Amino acid sequence: MAPRKLRIAAAGLGRMGHRHALNFLNRTPRAELVAAFTPDPKELQWGKQHLEPFGVTLYDDYDKMLEHTALDAVVIGTATSVHAEEAIKAMEKNLHVLCEKPLSTSIEICREVVEAAKKRPHLKVMCGFSRRFDDSYRDAFNKAEQGLIGRPTILRSQTCDKHDPSGFFVEYAAWSGGVFVDMAVHDIDLTLWFFGDDIVPKSISAHGVVAVQPGLKQHKDYDNAVGIVEFWNGKIAHYYCSRMMAHGQEDVTEIIGTEGKLSVNLNPQNNLVNYYHAGGITREIPAHYYGRFEMAFVREANEFAAACLDDTPLPMKLRNAVKAVEIGAWLQEALVSGKQIHFDETGRRVEKASL
Amino acid sequence: MAPRKLRIAAAGLGRMGHRHALNFLNRTPRAELVAAFTPDPKELQWGKQHLEPFGVTLYDDYDKMLEHTALDAVVIGTATSVHAEEAIKAMEKNLHVLCEKPLSTSIEICREVVEAAKKRPHLKVMCGFSRRFDDSYRDAFNKAEQGLIGRPTILRSQTCDKHDPSGFFVEYAAWSGGVFVDMAVHDIDLTLWFFGDDIVPKSISAHGVVAVQPGLKQHKDYDNAVGIVEFWNGKIAHYYCSRMMAHGQEDVTEIIGTEGKLSVNLNPQNNLVNYYHAGGITREIPAHYYGRFEMAFVREANEFAAACLDDTPLPMKLRNAVKAVEIGAWLQEALVSGKQIHFDETGRRVEKASL
Amino acid sequence: MAPRKLRIAAAGLGRMGHRHALNFLNRTPRAELVAAFTPDPKELQWGKQHLEPFGVTLYDDYDKMLEHTALDAVVIGTATSVHAEEAIKAMEKNLHVLCEKPLSTSIEICREVVEAAKKRPHLKVMCGFSRRFDDSYRDAFNKAEQGLIGRPTILRSQTCDKHDPSGFFVEYAAWSGGVFVDMAVHDIDLTLWFFGDDIVPKSISAHGVVAVQPGLKQHKDYDNAVGIVEFWNGKIAHYYCSRMMAHGQEDVTEIIGTEGKLSVNLNPQNNLVNYYHAGGITREIPAHYYGRFEMAFVREANEFAAACLDDTPLPMKLRNAVKAVEIGAWLQEALVSGKQIHFDETGRRVEKASL
Amino acid sequence: MAPRKLRIAAAGLGRMGHRHALNFLNRTPRAELVAAFTPDPKELQWGKQHLEPFGVTLYDDYDKMLEHTALDAVVIGTATSVHAEEAIKAMEKNLHVLCEKPLSTSIEICREVVEAAKKRPHLKVMCGFSRRFDDSYRDAFNKAEQGLIGRPTILRSQTCDKHDPSGFFVEYAAWSGGVFVDMAVHDIDLTLWFFGDDIVPKSISAHGVVAVQPGLKQHKDYDNAVGIVEFWNGKIAHYYCSRMMAHGQEDVTEIIGTEGKLSVNLNPQNNLVNYYHAGGITREIPAHYYGRFEMAFVREANEFAAACLDDTPLPMKLRNAVKAVEIGAWLQEALVSGKQIHFDETGRRVEKASL
Repeated sequence: MAPRKLRIAAAGLGRMGHRHALNFLNRTPRAELVAAFTPDPKELQWGKQHLEPFGVTLYDDYDKMLEHTALDAVVIGTATSVHAEEAIKAMEKNLHVLCEKPLSTSIEICREVVEAAKKRPHLKVMCGFSRRFDDSYRDAFNKAEQGLIGRPTILRSQTCDKHDPSGFFVEYAAWSGGVFVDMAVHDIDLTLWFFGDDIVPKSISAHGVVAVQPGLKQHKDYDNAVGIVEFWNGKIAHYYCSRMMAHGQEDVTEIIGTEGKLSVNLNPQNNLVNYYHAGGITREIPAHYYGRFEMAFVREANEFAAACLDDTPLPMKLRNAVKAVEIGAWLQEALVSGKQIHFDETGRRVEKASL
Repeated sequence: MAPRKLRIAAAGLGRMGHRHALNFLNRTPRAELVAAFTPDPKELQWGKQHLEPFGVTLYDDYDKMLEHTALDAVVIGTATSVHAEEAIKAMEKNLHVLCEKPLSTSIEICREVVEAAKKRPHLKVMCGFSRRFDDSYRDAFNKAEQGLIGRPTILRSQTCDKHDPSGFFVEYAAWSGGVFVDMAVHDIDLTLWFFGDDIVPKSISAHGVVAVQPGLKQHKDYDNAVGIVEFWNGKIAHYYCSRMMAHGQEDVTEIIGTEGKLSVNLNPQNNLVNYYHAGGITREIPAHYYGRFEMAFVREANEFAAACLDDTPLPMKLRNAVKAVEIGAWLQEALVSGKQIHFDETGRRVEKASL
Repeated sequence: MAPRKLRIAAAGLGRMGHRHALNFLNRTPRAELVAAFTPDPKELQWGKQHLEPFGVTLYDDYDKMLEHTALDAVVIGTATSVHAEEAIKAMEKNLHVLCEKPLSTSIEICREVVEAAKKRPHLKVMCGFSRRFDDSYRDAFNKAEQGLIGRPTILRSQTCDKHDPSGFFVEYAAWSGGVFVDMAVHDIDLTLWFFGDDIVPKSISAHGVVAVQPGLKQHKDYDNAVGIVEFWNGKIAHYYCSRMMAHGQEDVTEIIGTEGKLSVNLNPQNNLVNYYHAGGITREIPAHYYGRFEMAFVREANEFAAACLDDTPLPMKLRNAVKAVEIGAWLQEALVSGKQIHFDETGRRVEKASL
Repeated sequence: MAPRKLRIAAAGLGRMGHRHALNFLNRTPRAELVAAFTPDPKELQWGKQHLEPFGVTLYDDYDKMLEHTALDAVVIGTATSVHAEEAIKAMEKNLHVLCEKPLSTSIEICREVVEAAKKRPHLKVMCGFSRRFDDSYRDAFNKAEQGLIGRPTILRSQTCDKHDPSGFFVEYAAWSGGVFVDMAVHDIDLTLWFFGDDIVPKSISAHGVVAVQPGLKQHKDYDNAVGIVEFWNGKIAHYYCSRMMAHGQEDVTEIIGTEGKLSVNLNPQNNLVNYYHAGGITREIPAHYYGRFEMAFVREANEFAAACLDDTPLPMKLRNAVKAVEIGAWLQEALVSGKQIHFDETGRRVEKASL
């Protein structure tokens, strides 16, 4: 008898949604994509061409998709605003859930999802942070775990997108939660991974400028922002987010320990080619995050499938996804208000004067 | 109706064979691995565990496997000595063939395969040279095609394996055809790709040493060899093969043109991590060729499947595979004999004195 | 008649002092080191061996050295606490002054030196910031000036020293002014260079930890500190100082513009050697700042001599040296107090509430 | 009393000559440039401006210069054709000699210089091969000496000049001795250094093309040439010389040992700047060999001066300079004749058939 495969349905066939669908269709041997949902007619059309011929049933109604025969799991790649609702509905149907980050830009709503998941401990519910599945980050984490750099103390991490003059980022800012929630949330998640998810912030500072996308001001957002989070256990993380890179995607992390340092992607590159010409030596770099992290998403799909089928622990905790958004939101608040934020050792927010 | 998938059988489940089998099973969406053959009981056992549960029928007889219902194609990853015979048998059964390189270490036998394929032009018969399917080489080739380096003139290419003290390479040398046939054949194939497959050798020199594997001498082979092929159209390729690398796999190519240069993998690396420590900054590199070329083999499987299903041209010509072995054999001859080899402009071999 | 050479005297023969002395003695063709002063018997002994035989008169009294025959200039490399006094005394003797940074850790005293220099505009008075004389920084600055990166917007710069377990840094912290005044002052000076020296800070945040040198706490200093300076013209600089690097000196700068980016020393290296071994590929890096900036100090000496002899403008303004220390002191204040600092558009310090 | 300085005279003020003169004038603390000779009126004019004002006496007659008061040494940077004669004349005047490479393109004449030097063992006579004085090569050599790479076995080295469309290289080829004598001689000298200067060639092959400088054909020279020298002790060196680089000077060396590898300048660079732009990440590289080796020439001058003054051994043997030219000439012969050259274990040349 053939081994059972995870029967999964994909919600959303947009920018990330269609990639998750294809990854589960073609690059996750232990999963079977059986259904897909999108409310968008254009995306539905795409599904008719790329999914339906391979046995995937299409739906324009999320609730109906959840009724699909013998479904095991749902991968959610719709708009952020419906992530939480869809995740909870899926859990109510007893389905495992892999949800694109973030669960929500609202901490309250994030917590509701966590609560819903806590009530159903037999379900695997994961909010995917792609870097946790990237070969290079895994290798760096293992090296840190082995003690190669002593005690990790300073983490510098940046998420920098290629400049997009189309206005996309301005529209996006209306509901993204701001650069620290949308972009730095990855860097914050790495911080929780490398520093330990029990770390407690002590103080937070952030500064930003609008340099190339004046439209961002109306949404109180910035195209370049720098922030620092100091933790109570003697560690510091500092972040840089930008949507202004001329050269492409540049997501870099350095973990500095008491006895060494690890860097990830300090020298971004598209492939192993260098071009030598009269102006020097040039290498190209990925234009977008998917060029950098494609294989991480594939691994995410495979590890999620394995955890569901084998009932093994997921590679990351759901509540970290909430904590990362929470810290992101504080950074964003510090950025917009121009004020430092302070916390006591229990994580309770305090006025500096009262410390 | 679901789109038709290529029904393929895998011959050989050894070092490369089992990788081909898994790639067709799991990472080639348009193909379906339906059968596999191996004469080796241990490999058969592996197949029972990793292939059979997924609907793959196992055979210990190649001929019987060819009778498998509705088969379209065979991927051959057995020992080199049987490549040609198996390829020809498959063609006789009207099956497409993807054969691991080389077709044979004998030029005569290589040519028989080409002849057999010529008689069945409706069949896709390919001898896979993995580098042709590698992202970086593809990018370099496209840049050269676009004229970015002017006229390609000098090609330097090396295939260097990590030192293996187990004695494996010595055994292997008994039937591998020698370093230039076994290893440099990749570099020669790249030469045909970048310089044009109609290039005619003018003269060939080669020198080698046995530095760490004295056992190679009994097979008239070397663990380090350097060779030069000068072509009649004013181009030169030079090669370095080694089985002595302390650090891992290091396959490097430079294509030097009249107006620029392209390098591929001049700075090998395992991933994007750098480790900073008291001794400096270190990065790791792949230990073996599969660490470097894994995704190229996946692409090879996918492009082969597409060519068979859509009846489109294969990405490389079968006769190049013969020409590469032929040049490799001449280099090996020059190496063993300690004599330069010369050719006239038609490619006919001549004594230098007669030129 | 031989061209006139600048007759210069060196004050201080300690860590930096003796290097300045040797640079003026041996590597500054247009200068002649004629005298040297040090109050330290051990340094005097060194001078007897390395300077006296080459015609340099030694003094253990600074004032007497200033009376040396036909002196043109003084290079001051003594302890920071006496820089200002010695600089002013030299100016009073009508001598050009090249003073090791900083003029003082006190802004007040810095300003006194600037005032003294203003009264004698015919004198060349420079506080040397070595990076301004470094080939790579010069090249980066020229590229930025040419508009290659559009409008410089974000500057990230770090000064990171190799961990020194001897306790030297703890002693040093007693009078260094703190990490931001002692180390980041270089990064701040670069900021003034790349962003323009008329930039006005808007807000300043800083956070630090004591990770490996607990003794620093008694001096209210830190071995790792991160700070951000936001400027009124829509630019941000962020800094990282550390004395904890396992691997060596790592001074990195990135200047990110609206249309491109420049990096300086992102991949530190001692020389052009790479060592390939079973653990990967390793390169060494300089252990100390002099390994990185030796030639910058030589150029500094030569450009200072040229400016004095030819009465041409110095390559950097004296008041920038004060401004850099001032911003450093604010960062240090923000670090120690745990409070953000705010300024109005005229640079006047304000409480955030009042903005 | 001031320590004695080496009183040196410079012969030749052309391309390299004027650099040697300035290095001894300004960057060799233990030497004093007291005289200079050039037969060329334009060079003499340059000397009047840049040397005479600093106390250097100019001569347009070499013999007269040798009579200059109290001279200790001569640095010879004239045309290759007069190197040997001038060197011998200087020795006859009891002067130490630093001669730009090569002593001569004729082995016979080279040997005469060596003979002349042997008769005067108290004189320091050196033919400068700049790479021996380069920091990176020194470091690599020390690492090899310490056994870090086991037994050095394969050396790959290239000397590649930026393409010069002016026709300079064609003119130059008339008397340069050919690419292997003019360019590869550096790589051969490195081979003698890393493999030991007692190595005996076993066989030599070389191939070349004329790709961009058709005028070279009239001088039986090539703008791209590849050569292999196999030695009797189980070592191989292979070389690439080119005058066709679009991007600048690219002199690379790899030393591959039984337990590791060292590379020197595999990633050439002008400085530590990287420029990030819409087309990728670019670094510039030196346009000419002096951009790469300037500091090596300075060190050469200093070490030569020290050896003369302190009567210590020179850092390289004179007869190596002859051996390097000899091997270069054999490579050039193999290149032009299209025939492999063979030697017996004593280094005697033999026909292959007779082996």
